[in-house]
Amino acid sequence: MIIDCHGHYTTAPAALQGFRNAQLARLKDPALPNPADPRISDDEIRETIEGNQLRIARERGSDLTIFSPRASHMGHHIPDPATAQTWARVCNDLIYRVTTLFPDNFAGVAQLPQVAGEPLETCVKELERTVTELGFVGVNLNPDPSGGWWTSPPLTDEYWFPVYEKMVELDVPAMVHVSTSSNPAVHTLGAHYLNADTTAFMQLISGDLFARFPTLRLVIPHGGGAVPYHWGRFKGIATRDKRPPIETHVMNNVFFDTCVYHQPGIDLLTTVINDDNILFASEMLGAVRGNNPDGDFPWDDTKRYVEAAPLSGEARAKIYEQNTRRVYPRLDAQLKARGR
Amino acid sequence: MIIDCHGHYTTAPAALQGFRNAQLARLKDPALPNPADPRISDDEIRETIEGNQLRIARERGSDLTIFSPRASHMGHHIPDPATAQTWARVCNDLIYRVTTLFPDNFAGVAQLPQVAGEPLETCVKELERTVTELGFVGVNLNPDPSGGWWTSPPLTDEYWFPVYEKMVELDVPAMVHVSTSSNPAVHTLGAHYLNADTTAFMQLISGDLFARFPTLRLVIPHGGGAVPYHWGRFKGIATRDKRPPIETHVMNNVFFDTCVYHQPGIDLLTTVINDDNILFASEMLGAVRGNNPDGDFPWDDTKRYVEAAPLSGEARAKIYEQNTRRVYPRLDAQLKARGR
Repeated sequence: MIIDCHGHYTTAPAALQGFRNAQLARLKDPALPNPADPRISDDEIRETIEGNQLRIARERGSDLTIFSPRASHMGHHIPDPATAQTWARVCNDLIYRVTTLFPDNFAGVAQLPQVAGEPLETCVKELERTVTELGFVGVNLNPDPSGGWWTSPPLTDEYWFPVYEKMVELDVPAMVHVSTSSNPAVHTLGAHYLNADTTAFMQLISGDLFARFPTLRLVIPHGGGAVPYHWGRFKGIATRDKRPPIETHVMNNVFFDTCVYHQPGIDLLTTVINDDNILFASEMLGAVRGNNPDGDFPWDDTKRYVEAAPLSGEARAKIYEQNTRRVYPRLDAQLKARGR
Repeated sequence: MIIDCHGHYTTAPAALQGFRNAQLARLKDPALPNPADPRISDDEIRETIEGNQLRIARERGSDLTIFSPRASHMGHHIPDPATAQTWARVCNDLIYRVTTLFPDNFAGVAQLPQVAGEPLETCVKELERTVTELGFVGVNLNPDPSGGWWTSPPLTDEYWFPVYEKMVELDVPAMVHVSTSSNPAVHTLGAHYLNADTTAFMQLISGDLFARFPTLRLVIPHGGGAVPYHWGRFKGIATRDKRPPIETHVMNNVFFDTCVYHQPGIDLLTTVINDDNILFASEMLGAVRGNNPDGDFPWDDTKRYVEAAPLSGEARAKIYEQNTRRVYPRLDAQLKARGR
């Protein structure tokens, strides 16, 4: 089977955004009432999924998507913990409904109620709720909840340890994924996302996180940001900074997805990075929609590139399925329970 | 001939750092005296150049380096304009001495006295001084003088126009190059440099800078950050954001250097990016020093990778020399005046 490890519910029914708008309006005007949870029918969910992600997955031939709330709308830069908690709960509950309506096609990943500068206790609670009560198989962790200002400590800092401890206990990985940029100098999809991937990886080189949490697993999306393209640079900097070799210090615990939207990029990724560290993904429907006018096929049809990359059948099977089942053991257990 | 468009005086005599230390000490304790300019002999300069950059350039077979003060030491995050002005003058004057001692091997590029949030008039003056009085052929422009906090407006904002107007008048390009990161979450060489390259490129896609300044030329170093690896992403985002095609909107004015420290990276760069937009560079001795233990050759020996890349002789000649003479016309004029 083919598992897409990186999908967001970017096509959620409009009532979700209406709820968010009401939340944000109330932050500006506390006299407004607390908005009621959005009313969304099963049919509305079916329609937005069947007409979009599920239709396209079937067209392209992927079987299951690891699915989380829309990343750019997590909005962790909004400085109100109560708002963040409710928003995460509402978004995660909607993902849960997708996974119950389409149990063969979607597995859930949680949004956390992060707020820059705030402690992570509520995040730990929401992580536990989504995994133990909703059957989620992973979590998205935002290394820069300020949204482009980088005010949080590096991922190797003990600030983050409560989340890691719960992840280890529950045996779920995190995808390191920022939300929207609130910094006018930094474009969300064309700069902030890629910069965050690169920054997080360099934080991991500089620290010793996996000595403390040897079973912690982090997925760095968007093909690892700039990292595989500059693999020699990172190896050289690690040596110069007297860090252990990246391969043993970081790459037992870190995985890159295949959200790289052209053939030369996927060729580089699969040439430079070990087959064991690559997880198939498309982020469909995500940052880059529409067709490549040069080739008349969708930019984000990453399966096309992986098929054409110089990989053995064994390596492709790892990337499509085996690595992801290893990194997301709760997904593997769910699939095995269904005989898959 | 082979021109390396990206070298910094990272091996400057210790008196330069002593001067800087005295400057910074005086900022903390204004009772201290204004430090005198550093005393550095010609022999000291010769020694630091002949034993390092010039020796290595000769070993590797490059002929001339476009040379600027050490990028990570520009320190634009230090919030004192007078300090920045003196520091830029001292650093640029030292580069000038290198170019007069080794006129066949080095051409000067200026450091600007940028300070985050401050107007750019003093930068314009230093740019004019270095080009018209010291014979410099270009300038380094820092898109994030705050050092990792991204508090300045995008490069397409009119804040930057005074520098662009002077660049156009003098017909010199800028390399878009940040300095040290003062943000503990963002590693200078392994994250901030690459992020800045990516961020700047996306700013240019989002704006219309080259409609206003059609002859402005910007060199984005470190192989363009994450851009060539994610070329499909940038093309797709430009389309989705209803921007003109990158090729006509940006790539008549933007150039990437070859500071990518492994073969697959250079292969991708030269495959994805038009031959006319690539300038040979090594940033020797820069971020990544020392030998690749796997290959027993220096990481930053980028000529080795360019030689092995799938390029025609014609394309290689453009990358090694012709593009750089076109982007740096004052260098071209200096070379022609010497019959080169």
